[in-house]
Amino acid sequence: MHEVAAVSSRTASKAPSATRHIISINDLSNREIENVFDVAQSYLDELPDAKFPYKIGRSTNVASKSILASLFYEPSTRTRLSFESAMLRLGGQTITSADPATSSAAKGESLADSVRVISNYADIIVIRHPRDGAARLAAEYSPIPVINGGDGSHEHPTQTLCDLFTLKKKNRGLKNLKVAIAGDLKGSRTIHSFVYALARFGANIVPMAAKGMELPAHVDRRLREEFRCDLVPGEEGSIDALYRTPDEPHQPALFSGPEFAFKLKVRKDKIDALYVTRFQKERWNDKEQTYPKIDAKFLRGDKYAHASVLHPLPRVGELDVGLDSDTRAVYFEQAAYGVPIRMALIALLLGLHKSKSLNTFEGGFETPSVRLYDQPLALGIRCANPNCISHEPMEAPYVRNKFYVLKSDGRAKLRCVYCENDVDRFVVAHKKHKWYADEAALPTNMTDEHFKDLVVFANATEAEGCGYHSKKASAAQRVSAKSG
Amino acid sequence: MHEVAAVSSRTASKAPSATRHIISINDLSNREIENVFDVAQSYLDELPDAKFPYKIGRSTNVASKSILASLFYEPSTRTRLSFESAMLRLGGQTITSADPATSSAAKGESLADSVRVISNYADIIVIRHPRDGAARLAAEYSPIPVINGGDGSHEHPTQTLCDLFTLKKKNRGLKNLKVAIAGDLKGSRTIHSFVYALARFGANIVPMAAKGMELPAHVDRRLREEFRCDLVPGEEGSIDALYRTPDEPHQPALFSGPEFAFKLKVRKDKIDALYVTRFQKERWNDKEQTYPKIDAKFLRGDKYAHASVLHPLPRVGELDVGLDSDTRAVYFEQAAYGVPIRMALIALLLGLHKSKSLNTFEGGFETPSVRLYDQPLALGIRCANPNCISHEPMEAPYVRNKFYVLKSDGRAKLRCVYCENDVDRFVVAHKKHKWYADEAALPTNMTDEHFKDLVVFANATEAEGCGYHSKKASAAQRVSAKSG
Amino acid sequence: MHEVAAVSSRTASKAPSATRHIISINDLSNREIENVFDVAQSYLDELPDAKFPYKIGRSTNVASKSILASLFYEPSTRTRLSFESAMLRLGGQTITSADPATSSAAKGESLADSVRVISNYADIIVIRHPRDGAARLAAEYSPIPVINGGDGSHEHPTQTLCDLFTLKKKNRGLKNLKVAIAGDLKGSRTIHSFVYALARFGANIVPMAAKGMELPAHVDRRLREEFRCDLVPGEEGSIDALYRTPDEPHQPALFSGPEFAFKLKVRKDKIDALYVTRFQKERWNDKEQTYPKIDAKFLRGDKYAHASVLHPLPRVGELDVGLDSDTRAVYFEQAAYGVPIRMALIALLLGLHKSKSLNTFEGGFETPSVRLYDQPLALGIRCANPNCISHEPMEAPYVRNKFYVLKSDGRAKLRCVYCENDVDRFVVAHKKHKWYADEAALPTNMTDEHFKDLVVFANATEAEGCGYHSKKASAAQRVSAKSG
Repeated sequence: MHEVAAVSSRTASKAPSATRHIISINDLSNREIENVFDVAQSYLDELPDAKFPYKIGRSTNVASKSILASLFYEPSTRTRLSFESAMLRLGGQTITSADPATSSAAKGESLADSVRVISNYADIIVIRHPRDGAARLAAEYSPIPVINGGDGSHEHPTQTLCDLFTLKKKNRGLKNLKVAIAGDLKGSRTIHSFVYALARFGANIVPMAAKGMELPAHVDRRLREEFRCDLVPGEEGSIDALYRTPDEPHQPALFSGPEFAFKLKVRKDKIDALYVTRFQKERWNDKEQTYPKIDAKFLRGDKYAHASVLHPLPRVGELDVGLDSDTRAVYFEQAAYGVPIRMALIALLLGLHKSKSLNTFEGGFETPSVRLYDQPLALGIRCANPNCISHEPMEAPYVRNKFYVLKSDGRAKLRCVYCENDVDRFVVAHKKHKWYADEAALPTNMTDEHFKDLVVFANATEAEGCGYHSKKASAAQRVSAKSG
Repeated sequence: MHEVAAVSSRTASKAPSATRHIISINDLSNREIENVFDVAQSYLDELPDAKFPYKIGRSTNVASKSILASLFYEPSTRTRLSFESAMLRLGGQTITSADPATSSAAKGESLADSVRVISNYADIIVIRHPRDGAARLAAEYSPIPVINGGDGSHEHPTQTLCDLFTLKKKNRGLKNLKVAIAGDLKGSRTIHSFVYALARFGANIVPMAAKGMELPAHVDRRLREEFRCDLVPGEEGSIDALYRTPDEPHQPALFSGPEFAFKLKVRKDKIDALYVTRFQKERWNDKEQTYPKIDAKFLRGDKYAHASVLHPLPRVGELDVGLDSDTRAVYFEQAAYGVPIRMALIALLLGLHKSKSLNTFEGGFETPSVRLYDQPLALGIRCANPNCISHEPMEAPYVRNKFYVLKSDGRAKLRCVYCENDVDRFVVAHKKHKWYADEAALPTNMTDEHFKDLVVFANATEAEGCGYHSKKASAAQRVSAKSG
Repeated sequence: MHEVAAVSSRTASKAPSATRHIISINDLSNREIENVFDVAQSYLDELPDAKFPYKIGRSTNVASKSILASLFYEPSTRTRLSFESAMLRLGGQTITSADPATSSAAKGESLADSVRVISNYADIIVIRHPRDGAARLAAEYSPIPVINGGDGSHEHPTQTLCDLFTLKKKNRGLKNLKVAIAGDLKGSRTIHSFVYALARFGANIVPMAAKGMELPAHVDRRLREEFRCDLVPGEEGSIDALYRTPDEPHQPALFSGPEFAFKLKVRKDKIDALYVTRFQKERWNDKEQTYPKIDAKFLRGDKYAHASVLHPLPRVGELDVGLDSDTRAVYFEQAAYGVPIRMALIALLLGLHKSKSLNTFEGGFETPSVRLYDQPLALGIRCANPNCISHEPMEAPYVRNKFYVLKSDGRAKLRCVYCENDVDRFVVAHKKHKWYADEAALPTNMTDEHFKDLVVFANATEAEGCGYHSKKASAAQRVSAKSG
């Protein structure tokens, strides 16, 4: 039996805590996102002609002593090249491993080892990986900043920064905007990062999923519970459902101004922005999937009359080429922001910017004091998401069963540290007493001393398979033994 | 039915017209080619020891604010690496997508979209693609200069610049030179760019094709009609056939001098340069093809006694390794010129050179006022070359049926804007009157107003399939109806 | 019949002899290795915080005019990226061909041609190739320095420099150290370079091979004969076998000091360093091979109590992840030295360092005046190693049957110039007299005149197949003819 190490803070990293990693959009506070935008805008302002298409040039040399390592385990053109372009525009340099078939992964090296080695060759790493949560694992082993360039179906935070920045440029603010998101809401990592950010900045989200590609249950619940969105079905005539963000006095209102308030009044029942996503064939077996096609006909009418059309690209048919010359189409401009946004993020992560900075604590939008449940892979409950990096055999020696302990409807729930999928039902066992409680009960107000003795199983059968006995039964037995 | 947009100038680009692209060798005027050579030579002159093998070093920093994007959809070593080396030698930087399997092309992104996105990350693009005309398509969608690094069997203009520069260094001039071209004249894109340039500078061309690999019909006819070469069969004893360039007073005579005139007299009936090409297995199904092998025995005798031997490399057996130490072998020197030539071209395209420049009009050796026939892909005649980029399904939303309208033997002919293959026989229809003319008749002196109403079909059957009727038959019918 | 060219010096290169290549660790003298270490240490000393993990930054700009070409025909992450990082840290630039499938190798280009072309685009080349001896072939054709980044199972000299540097940092010296080498001693190129270096610096080597993966015969014999190691079986209790290096007054004692002598006394019968190697699945057919696993249990006890644990990485199971936090584990630090070591080597090879330098003669630890046997591929004996680059069909026009003529037990033996495998048994024939000697007899003290007339065959049968007759038989025949 392996020993369980349970720590009480969210900081699960083995790396020095001063190192900031950007794995989820929620690793950045609202204030930090605004800093990224300010710095990005300053790069644009320096241009002789600050209009799209931009001619950025190399306006600065601040990163002249730094190297960015691109570590891509999945195909990419725009994310990798825009990161590399951004680093070069800052005066820095790049090293690239873009093809797993020609890297040490082909020899069977784990991601954890690769990152530890490459962190000696560079100053910052951008990583893309087919597994959910892979970037978080990489960050745990890296002494230098890791940026998530897309991990499985989990998140793609720098894409979201470009998306938000585009919305800001087009709409001057995000509060109360109605943003429709169309297509694959299930498998699209850009959508997952995006909806959290929309909710945080007070925008309303209109989900328009392709059949069977609705938002994953854990994302939906997180929007409702953590980001306090109301899910309003069939509201406002033409709009079928809507995540309505709460109107709280302390809610951040990014870049909102008087013009914005005015706009809102005249745009009732209208979509301000339509975010289209690619049909990701590589993640779906059924190629015959019906998928919404956005074209001029779809956008006809009042509802979309002033809607910006966004797309993270590449597109493969779901967004009609005929729209390219439509003034509502902003997706190429959105792609162009990849460079200044990533320049800003790199400069801030490396501490190269004079007047703006990121906080140095281990990131997170949520309060950082979440209890961590942490035990070896061989013991107890595992993440239920089969695409989670914790299920990659090559990484087995490097991952643990690690979950944040959160409250949901008054009950404890577990969230995988890597892929952020949630577990609601489980049983809690006591390593010394050898009993387990039939009901999930993982008190968040326990002392560390007591918490260390607990182990969680997926259900009673697993607990019993490991030699644990039902607490109720034991008590009954003891009673019956006594009375017997 | 889609609308047909017909424009009257050769400028088909959607990009700002001030942007110069180098897709064909004919996009550069003779004067511009001389400028490229002057700038390239100036880089060589700066070297401490200006002899092959050159040690170029970084002699300049003019491109320090610029990024070259390499976008390669086909294998390459020398073209990609020499472009990247050239950019670095200029003080610039590079970003690279060298493997379609790890790029967004693997996700099904079109070339047109990729180029539009990448043009935000770089200042100049070099592209290689397996489809004829792909580089022209890319240029149509790029706001930054695109250089063709080889597109299918179409052209490879920067290789031709290296070839001409080598000939110039070895022979001091090109006028009246006899240049033999051996091997695959059909599939070799380097040959196609090369023969146009030879003809333009007054060199005579001796074709020595492998069986079944003769110059394509459209290249042959273009040499004869546009470049006014005489095709002389069996002339001058040992030489079987020859494209003899006309001796016109206004013909450009690149770098010719008094020494050169002298040389010519003594070299009658001799080959001045032999250009050998690779057997491109990847473009031929029949691997058992017999192919000429150039070795010491072949070069024995007076005919080749002073012939420089060139090869664009790589070689795969058609050029004997034993020749490497022969003083006539200049192919490694030819490869070395790849760096200064490409440095010069990049510097000129980016406007980084002080005293020399390229013209800013949309390029072309031919007069730029050629009428363009331009209609949607769904309507009328399509390019007959199955490897043309216009037949790539992924690009279907981005290409149109676009042809230059040219004269040939007094008749109109169409030349595909992308791959430059010609169409001689077609029928012309009138969209309003709904008739078609049995004979190809596309007057180049029509007003734009009338031209807009025309649509071209491959033949009468196609026209009738689209609901058009023979003009002659209609007239006859009308007559018969009247008389009936 | 081809002519045989035999030269009398070891310099077989076609490149200018002033160009230094690092193909084998034995291309560097002990003094030169110390220079590399001094320069590497100087880069570390300049850091604000000179402790692992290092933050190297760009401390120098000496290579600002130079380009490194990475030419990798086999997967790599750490070797390629650390070379590229090193070049960038020196202020230089890089061009990369990391995937044979997207390079001209896919078109069938030979390594020899590729290197000759790329040497025009860069100032120094690092090469990795699956064939033994490929890097030596590349060096023969390159006018610029070539560094071997790993060639088949032959050598990996820059890895050895990192390994030695790590041992030096951890043990202050190498003389009399006991270094155990575990795992695949047969196929691991890092091991082969490593053991030569250990022997040269006076360390003792404890071989702990996996079954069937013992040191190759030619490496074993070279250790014993050239480096004068005693192979002591079962010595010193727990240690089963040991290559004990001789204690000679003129033997180099790298970095040894008084502390070191003291340490040795207390460490009798103990291992000072344990070097673990990866099970290279790609070189073994039998995946079921048993392989030693090094973990905490294995390292328990006095023997390994103070042993540094090294591994060239990547690891795939033979080195337990649980050791990572053990203070004896130095393999990530070892990986970190890849950058300063390769910075130093590049700077020295390019002559960019002020106070330190490499000698300019064609390298070699051994005396440089070894006789070279050199004849065309079609004639006589060929290297017996099937993975030698001399057996690669694509390279056939570029390689020759080239062997150093060495003495072994008073007899001549041949060592392949490319892969350094030895041939002990052969017959020597005389081209003019048409006889062959039954016994291998290749006098090293012959005049060049006589040597040129000799040709070597693998055995009598081959010699006779080429029309040679036994000298003894001939003599007997002549006698019998005379007497007859």
